[in-house]
Amino acid sequence: MSSEFGKILKVSVFGQSHGTAIGVNIDGLPAGEEIDLEELQRFLDRRRPGKNPLSTARNEGDVPEILSGLLDGKTCGAPLCAIIRNSDQHSGDYAELQDKPRPGHADYTAWVKWRGQADMRGGGHFSGRLTAPLCIAGGIAKQILARRGVYVGAHLQVVGGIADAPFPLMPTPELFEEVIRKPFPVLDDKTGETMQAIILNAKEGQTSVGGSVECAAIGLPAGLGDPMFDGVENRLAVALFGIPAVKCVEFGMGFAASAVLAASSNDSFAVKDGKIVTETNRAGGILGGITTGMPVVLQVAFKPTPSIGKPQKTVSLSKMENTTLTVHGRHDPCIAHRAVPVVEAVTATVLLDLLLEGNHGTF
Amino acid sequence: MSSEFGKILKVSVFGQSHGTAIGVNIDGLPAGEEIDLEELQRFLDRRRPGKNPLSTARNEGDVPEILSGLLDGKTCGAPLCAIIRNSDQHSGDYAELQDKPRPGHADYTAWVKWRGQADMRGGGHFSGRLTAPLCIAGGIAKQILARRGVYVGAHLQVVGGIADAPFPLMPTPELFEEVIRKPFPVLDDKTGETMQAIILNAKEGQTSVGGSVECAAIGLPAGLGDPMFDGVENRLAVALFGIPAVKCVEFGMGFAASAVLAASSNDSFAVKDGKIVTETNRAGGILGGITTGMPVVLQVAFKPTPSIGKPQKTVSLSKMENTTLTVHGRHDPCIAHRAVPVVEAVTATVLLDLLLEGNHGTF
Amino acid sequence: MSSEFGKILKVSVFGQSHGTAIGVNIDGLPAGEEIDLEELQRFLDRRRPGKNPLSTARNEGDVPEILSGLLDGKTCGAPLCAIIRNSDQHSGDYAELQDKPRPGHADYTAWVKWRGQADMRGGGHFSGRLTAPLCIAGGIAKQILARRGVYVGAHLQVVGGIADAPFPLMPTPELFEEVIRKPFPVLDDKTGETMQAIILNAKEGQTSVGGSVECAAIGLPAGLGDPMFDGVENRLAVALFGIPAVKCVEFGMGFAASAVLAASSNDSFAVKDGKIVTETNRAGGILGGITTGMPVVLQVAFKPTPSIGKPQKTVSLSKMENTTLTVHGRHDPCIAHRAVPVVEAVTATVLLDLLLEGNHGTF
Amino acid sequence: MSSEFGKILKVSVFGQSHGTAIGVNIDGLPAGEEIDLEELQRFLDRRRPGKNPLSTARNEGDVPEILSGLLDGKTCGAPLCAIIRNSDQHSGDYAELQDKPRPGHADYTAWVKWRGQADMRGGGHFSGRLTAPLCIAGGIAKQILARRGVYVGAHLQVVGGIADAPFPLMPTPELFEEVIRKPFPVLDDKTGETMQAIILNAKEGQTSVGGSVECAAIGLPAGLGDPMFDGVENRLAVALFGIPAVKCVEFGMGFAASAVLAASSNDSFAVKDGKIVTETNRAGGILGGITTGMPVVLQVAFKPTPSIGKPQKTVSLSKMENTTLTVHGRHDPCIAHRAVPVVEAVTATVLLDLLLEGNHGTF
Repeated sequence: MSSEFGKILKVSVFGQSHGTAIGVNIDGLPAGEEIDLEELQRFLDRRRPGKNPLSTARNEGDVPEILSGLLDGKTCGAPLCAIIRNSDQHSGDYAELQDKPRPGHADYTAWVKWRGQADMRGGGHFSGRLTAPLCIAGGIAKQILARRGVYVGAHLQVVGGIADAPFPLMPTPELFEEVIRKPFPVLDDKTGETMQAIILNAKEGQTSVGGSVECAAIGLPAGLGDPMFDGVENRLAVALFGIPAVKCVEFGMGFAASAVLAASSNDSFAVKDGKIVTETNRAGGILGGITTGMPVVLQVAFKPTPSIGKPQKTVSLSKMENTTLTVHGRHDPCIAHRAVPVVEAVTATVLLDLLLEGNHGTF
Repeated sequence: MSSEFGKILKVSVFGQSHGTAIGVNIDGLPAGEEIDLEELQRFLDRRRPGKNPLSTARNEGDVPEILSGLLDGKTCGAPLCAIIRNSDQHSGDYAELQDKPRPGHADYTAWVKWRGQADMRGGGHFSGRLTAPLCIAGGIAKQILARRGVYVGAHLQVVGGIADAPFPLMPTPELFEEVIRKPFPVLDDKTGETMQAIILNAKEGQTSVGGSVECAAIGLPAGLGDPMFDGVENRLAVALFGIPAVKCVEFGMGFAASAVLAASSNDSFAVKDGKIVTETNRAGGILGGITTGMPVVLQVAFKPTPSIGKPQKTVSLSKMENTTLTVHGRHDPCIAHRAVPVVEAVTATVLLDLLLEGNHGTF
Repeated sequence: MSSEFGKILKVSVFGQSHGTAIGVNIDGLPAGEEIDLEELQRFLDRRRPGKNPLSTARNEGDVPEILSGLLDGKTCGAPLCAIIRNSDQHSGDYAELQDKPRPGHADYTAWVKWRGQADMRGGGHFSGRLTAPLCIAGGIAKQILARRGVYVGAHLQVVGGIADAPFPLMPTPELFEEVIRKPFPVLDDKTGETMQAIILNAKEGQTSVGGSVECAAIGLPAGLGDPMFDGVENRLAVALFGIPAVKCVEFGMGFAASAVLAASSNDSFAVKDGKIVTETNRAGGILGGITTGMPVVLQVAFKPTPSIGKPQKTVSLSKMENTTLTVHGRHDPCIAHRAVPVVEAVTATVLLDLLLEGNHGTF
Repeated sequence: MSSEFGKILKVSVFGQSHGTAIGVNIDGLPAGEEIDLEELQRFLDRRRPGKNPLSTARNEGDVPEILSGLLDGKTCGAPLCAIIRNSDQHSGDYAELQDKPRPGHADYTAWVKWRGQADMRGGGHFSGRLTAPLCIAGGIAKQILARRGVYVGAHLQVVGGIADAPFPLMPTPELFEEVIRKPFPVLDDKTGETMQAIILNAKEGQTSVGGSVECAAIGLPAGLGDPMFDGVENRLAVALFGIPAVKCVEFGMGFAASAVLAASSNDSFAVKDGKIVTETNRAGGILGGITTGMPVVLQVAFKPTPSIGKPQKTVSLSKMENTTLTVHGRHDPCIAHRAVPVVEAVTATVLLDLLLEGNHGTF
């Protein structure tokens, strides 16, 4: 059950960074949904590397081949499997890594877990490359959600401690669309310039920098999610922590709620246009694990890409002795800005799963 | 699947705050494990309310009755079900709440989800009282883990923005035991005094304050957890977000990783006493979702208890109009300090589940 | 996940034959469903032992106490936990069995599984007594299904090779109600008399006899169930094989389909009253794992109760040598006739789970 | 969760009969297992159609392409995804079927389930062709099981009511190997000739005939499986009912146990060579859902292939009126003999999953 999430809509991801292909199997999509493949490609392109100096030079077309589940452009109820063949692999870059695990990466734990048999070329199954198939699932989910009036968007929230303006309490689709049109996915362009400078600076210094993404879903009905361990937060968290390098998931005010009094945390209820709403949305649209009908808002923090050019202390697994490692190869000086569509994708997939479950109230 | 978590070890929680009983069914415990019921009671007592002015005046003995799964004091392989009968209920306090949902609480979403049929007395199934059965499961898990060399402990990390010293990078069982012996579960007593003042101040002001708990597990083998969506972080998150009022879950450096360069995030590997360790533990003992063998460290943030004495704006569900609510009844001015054993309990239960799965490597 | 089944509606069973209590936790019931406790008790009484010489002399009132999930007689969305305290235990009868596993019973495998720590008194967690909590879940499911136009009924199909008339191809609720009113649950009373003679004969001979139960569900919509491994047959099978002593589960023609040509197996489609029906129902209302809208029909075969008075060859676990066992205690000379409501209960619970999933088509 | 089964080892099947490709994703394989691809191909060839007049003329090479999970011929811990591209499709044969559901096939239920959007060419996702990916999973599982001393084999048990000699109570690998070497997979060749005559006769008459497969697994340890709903029988049943056309699953004596007294159903225990065994194996190696250490023996019954050349009564979905259908295209006059490796495959996969769970006792 490792590389899979979902309940009604099951998403299984497979592939290794330098294997034949990576891909995703999506089981449980509703039938009769038209999938706009060009729109899907545009979504995938938002995550694709090799476009500018802010990301890895690895250049993958990332054009998916859909093997099943589509008939005449529409979902047919059967599982949809899509694959992306790997093309621009430089596996030679990774030879040294078979013996010297990169600090901060999963090399060592994969080696332990799989008793020295893991595919460690480029991080293998733990590579950020596996987020491409997640984006296939999420891009499809976004199209189906849109048809049901639900819009999912995101922006780069933090890079190296510098914070973009947070979403206003009630984010809108228009705001998201604007972010998508920008070359750098922030709300405030001035802050975006600083962030880019930080990333390029890290690149020059042969290091990397952390960041975070804020995501929101607008248009969800109230009543989605089940109590305790099967709520919206639980289900989103289990999926979001599956994105490589994520170390924190928070909803609404998140950690900041630990610093305030109730008056700054509770959201007053009010009747507006015959509907119950909250005047603020500090809860991030979720109370008791169940949607309130307000936008679901979440933040996801990414640590700095662990693969850096600077020499680092590590061990030789074969000799069991201390040594030093200099990682060559092509790496991202920051992963967070490329993760914006990934967080959208995962969020959209989980929310579609919840919507399909369909046991939310009708009040 | 709502009020349940776990894979090999399944934990199902039931009950409502003012119902006949609350309880837990634990399926998948290894057989032959001696359960020290007095030790379990001492653990439950750490969470029990009514002990001092820092928590609700509701006074529940919280002595569990074990209905199954034990034979001559040992687990017998069959599911272990334990219940706690509710005794000190003042349901009258909650009559007004049937129509006026408390801001920040699950009253409104429960009403939507369950079409007006939810048990809304004292938060019903969403009450913090449901953490008592979680502590039964966790207290048992802690005893079984201890026999396997794994120690789980926690401390109050933040109250109202004031932070206790974080766990040193390599926490020890001795440190935890000291925290347990204290009346207020912090590392630094001076900070603890300030925190208590903040809580009592919130109480006087008929409001409440947020906080956070830091938890660590020492002695886990490397190789626990599966990649992507079934890793240690995913599984802990799904369970921890089931604790009422949790809005953030983070591992190791957590959100702070978004503000630093790789040099401050990566942990160097080193050989020490013939074993591979990391020199720091910013990853919180987890890389790629899999344990490194270093302590697993996590933080959980709690929002202020939503039930407060101050008048708040809300709506009348029956009249669909705006109104004001003054919550009576007995409430906690802060939930975080009582949540310390709850976070330990949930963490211990998840980690035991992972240990029982037993497919970690043997290197 | 052992003693649990279901997807939206999760049913967890706990308890041992001679423990403090047995019970069931039902998570995922729709809210606002009135539960008629007297009707539930009447349903439980159909399974209750000690009523006549055809079943064990163990006399249990089997009156459940509902601990949670009900408010003013209606489900409130929260998990419903119900327990039955054991009363008429004669554990002394079982002392010898701790060392000598009964042939055909789970004593030996429980001993292996749980490393000698299993509760082996009366079969422990493997006892047929655990079907009482299943009937609580099923009795509740039957009431909720009835409100949705679905009726589940069953009859004793075979005892010792003697077969009751099978359900006509299109069984009716009236037929079921008639079976319920009879002291012995068959369609044809003459056959029923022969069956009773066989059972009493087995009892006299200190042995037991096998049998089977046929069950049908009327009124289900077409389109329930998912393809391949999550179909109606798969889900019913996983639950039905959980009833002790079941060795065969079949749908529609079942095994007999292996002996015929397609003309005797295919059901012609026809339009009747503006609805698509099949003229026969050899498929048992299921094609490709999905309901056709015709009655779901299934058969479940039970082996003879393994506990018999006759001396049998077995081993001493402590001495690892061959020995002989004479089982004392009170046992059923046939379990199949008491299993009629149990099969109904399990079938009803699974079908309600499927109905609640709600992703069947709307054509 | 529809087209997926397994707990530690998750198997997801995708594809439609006339789509681009069919395939399987296998998540949870142990790392470092060498996969002999030639041996895998030989196993797949046992199921492959087009070899003789006893099966459909559709001629597919059925050579899998492995996209992930293998490194230098060994499993690497990551999910193994394998696909087979469809080649010999005659989709034109199926045009009429879009409107006229074939009796006995899933056409109608797929149409309802997926609201008229199902891929109905050749049965779409419900086609027997989907058993090819199951055989990929099973062929791999068989190789891994063999390395652990577990052998899984099967034979054609019944065709049209004519029964092959059942497995002797203690089947052996040698017996299975002999069946594999034969062109027709029976124990008794004389009976095999009669069965072939029945199949050819059905083919001539443009109809089809049912059959059954008996399967056994030798070498399993005692103690596999969990009680009640997660036992060996439950898990095998959920997977086996996923094979198209299966209507009955039984273990050991199966349905026949309903016709006998306990003396003919119970298996005496005995100590043999210092190990506890049963003298007979009527339980099919399973007591209380847990393995005894004796061979697991099961039978699976298949209905006649529903697609037959003879005209049949059905309905027009568009006109909602009665009509007649003559199925053209290439079909199997019997599916049971080709299902022998499929039953082996599914059984092997489930048993490997159980073995990997690893929580069986050690006595």
